[in-house]
Amino acid sequence: MKPVDPHPGSGIDRRVLLSTMALLPALSTALLPESVAAQTATSAGPLPSWNEGPARQAILDFVRATTDRSSPNHVAPEDRVAVFDQDGTLWVEHPIYSQVVYCLDRVPAVVEKKPELKNVEPFKTVLSGNREAIARLSLRDLEKVLVATLTGMTVEEFVAEASKWLDTAKDPRWKRPYTELVYQPMLEVLRYLRDNGYKTYIVTGGGQDFVRVYAEKVYGIPPEQVVGTAAGTKYGYGKDGKPILTKEPKLLLNDDKAGKPEGIHLMIGRRPYAAFGNSTGDREMLEYTGAGAGARLKMLVLHDDAAREYAYGPALGLPDSKVGTFTPELYDEAKSKGWMVISMKNDWSRIFAFDQTRGL
Amino acid sequence: MKPVDPHPGSGIDRRVLLSTMALLPALSTALLPESVAAQTATSAGPLPSWNEGPARQAILDFVRATTDRSSPNHVAPEDRVAVFDQDGTLWVEHPIYSQVVYCLDRVPAVVEKKPELKNVEPFKTVLSGNREAIARLSLRDLEKVLVATLTGMTVEEFVAEASKWLDTAKDPRWKRPYTELVYQPMLEVLRYLRDNGYKTYIVTGGGQDFVRVYAEKVYGIPPEQVVGTAAGTKYGYGKDGKPILTKEPKLLLNDDKAGKPEGIHLMIGRRPYAAFGNSTGDREMLEYTGAGAGARLKMLVLHDDAAREYAYGPALGLPDSKVGTFTPELYDEAKSKGWMVISMKNDWSRIFAFDQTRGL
Repeated sequence: MKPVDPHPGSGIDRRVLLSTMALLPALSTALLPESVAAQTATSAGPLPSWNEGPARQAILDFVRATTDRSSPNHVAPEDRVAVFDQDGTLWVEHPIYSQVVYCLDRVPAVVEKKPELKNVEPFKTVLSGNREAIARLSLRDLEKVLVATLTGMTVEEFVAEASKWLDTAKDPRWKRPYTELVYQPMLEVLRYLRDNGYKTYIVTGGGQDFVRVYAEKVYGIPPEQVVGTAAGTKYGYGKDGKPILTKEPKLLLNDDKAGKPEGIHLMIGRRPYAAFGNSTGDREMLEYTGAGAGARLKMLVLHDDAAREYAYGPALGLPDSKVGTFTPELYDEAKSKGWMVISMKNDWSRIFAFDQTRGL
Repeated sequence: MKPVDPHPGSGIDRRVLLSTMALLPALSTALLPESVAAQTATSAGPLPSWNEGPARQAILDFVRATTDRSSPNHVAPEDRVAVFDQDGTLWVEHPIYSQVVYCLDRVPAVVEKKPELKNVEPFKTVLSGNREAIARLSLRDLEKVLVATLTGMTVEEFVAEASKWLDTAKDPRWKRPYTELVYQPMLEVLRYLRDNGYKTYIVTGGGQDFVRVYAEKVYGIPPEQVVGTAAGTKYGYGKDGKPILTKEPKLLLNDDKAGKPEGIHLMIGRRPYAAFGNSTGDREMLEYTGAGAGARLKMLVLHDDAAREYAYGPALGLPDSKVGTFTPELYDEAKSKGWMVISMKNDWSRIFAFDQTRGL
């Protein structure tokens, strides 16, 4: 086993952001809305979109071990906490995080309100729609885009803006809203755990406020159970004297890598019994979960299904996609610590609710 | 109405900490444990320890208005959030916050582990037990005490230390554990709101990790529903290679005054429908709650019962006690905005569960 570096890096990989820009097809276009596919499974029994195999069995065994009152690993209901990474674990992250698309898409509206930015970089480049030029933006420039599009408004204004985008923006490959690109098997795990008394949390490197906009509707996870990278807000009073909270460009919690267990302690205050991830950003969260006593479920989604979704990552000998990196070292750690790797290709009979194609 | 200063100060009033030191009777002595009084009301109906009157009626009216499906102010169950300040609202804060007593009491144990601190200020002075000298400690010295006693250990070690103290330390006036000095009428409000589908949260200027140690047992409020002043933790690995979270001397959230609505947004992500406080530290939280649409319950506990608890605060024309300051300006704002002021003397027939004396 290779020596484990306790701090293999902190924060968002800057190269990730920059490189994914190159893959950005264009500012996403708002097409006509389509009907939202039902996300409930119709088959009887738990986990109908999972094939028989060790991954599905591990989930069933864990739930039995922690909820059967006669089990030595029975867990009191109030301690039943399960945490889920979002990007690449609950929904598609490839080829670019949808929140980054959101920020780029918001630039025209920001410039409309502040016309003086029109000929100022990086806004000028983003407005040009020139993908190569956008990909060459410096980190400092990208930060300006994030700050301009994610801060400076009230929390209510942000919710309204993000909701509108989510209702209209579409993924270029599937031509569907991003909120439909959620993994049906994972929706079933969320529901199965909740049916067995687990409180389900999202613990994401993405923006906490952004994910909260749709988490309840899409995953059945309420805002108070979304832990994410969080900027501060500032309390003040609007022109009418009414109290307002304004989103500030001040990072409170970088909820990635070591920041995930730290965020779990801050926001939940209990060690999880189950943790799901898909990349090196989730490594510390799974380690922290696994270090608790009794039965603990640790699972990693491996993107190995090029036909139905994507195949990427160095663990498969494939190029690093710059999103959700699954390294050989992570694979080794998973094997040595008994973490279960979920093969999308082999373990999931269906990827999306709208996908009628069955796998194995 | 006086003009409202949007930011009357931020953070913990430093004078509070310094001045309360003077009132510290002594490092609390650990006496023999007594049996814990039952905290459940036995009378039939809700709020048995409340006298008939506008305060009790306001609570009943609010619950009816927000839970009756035919009410124009009906609130969906998932939106039912009620927030409670702790010190002076749920339990006794006078003459000194119990967490400050905890920190001073911890100094001998800290010095035992680090004997080099024995003759170093401020630890030398705290060890002397000389109240006047402790009261004269500078803010910088006090911060050293807080940092030495609240950080540097794993989160599990902190829970063990604080639990042991809470089991043995006693309030000098009542000769009972601090966790028994909770207001019976407020326990009834917590239960009544929960029985009506409300999620109850503590939103305290006190330490989040400290309050979490006892909140579930004492108030029925789980760790994930305690929002407080929070320091960061650092993820790392112990000598045995196991992941640990170490409490760090880095302030993440100063959950007082404007920090309360900011903390509510960070940790809950929903505007509360009910808010209870007792001081200027709760003002912004009540304003923020009141600025929402529909029926909102805003209540302030007034400490006006010198016989059964304490009477203090400028709003009563009494000296500022340096804990939970209730100013005339806060009283004016409460009146102008329809916030309900709870008179402990007139509105509560009983203060503590162990108190068999009935009031009015």
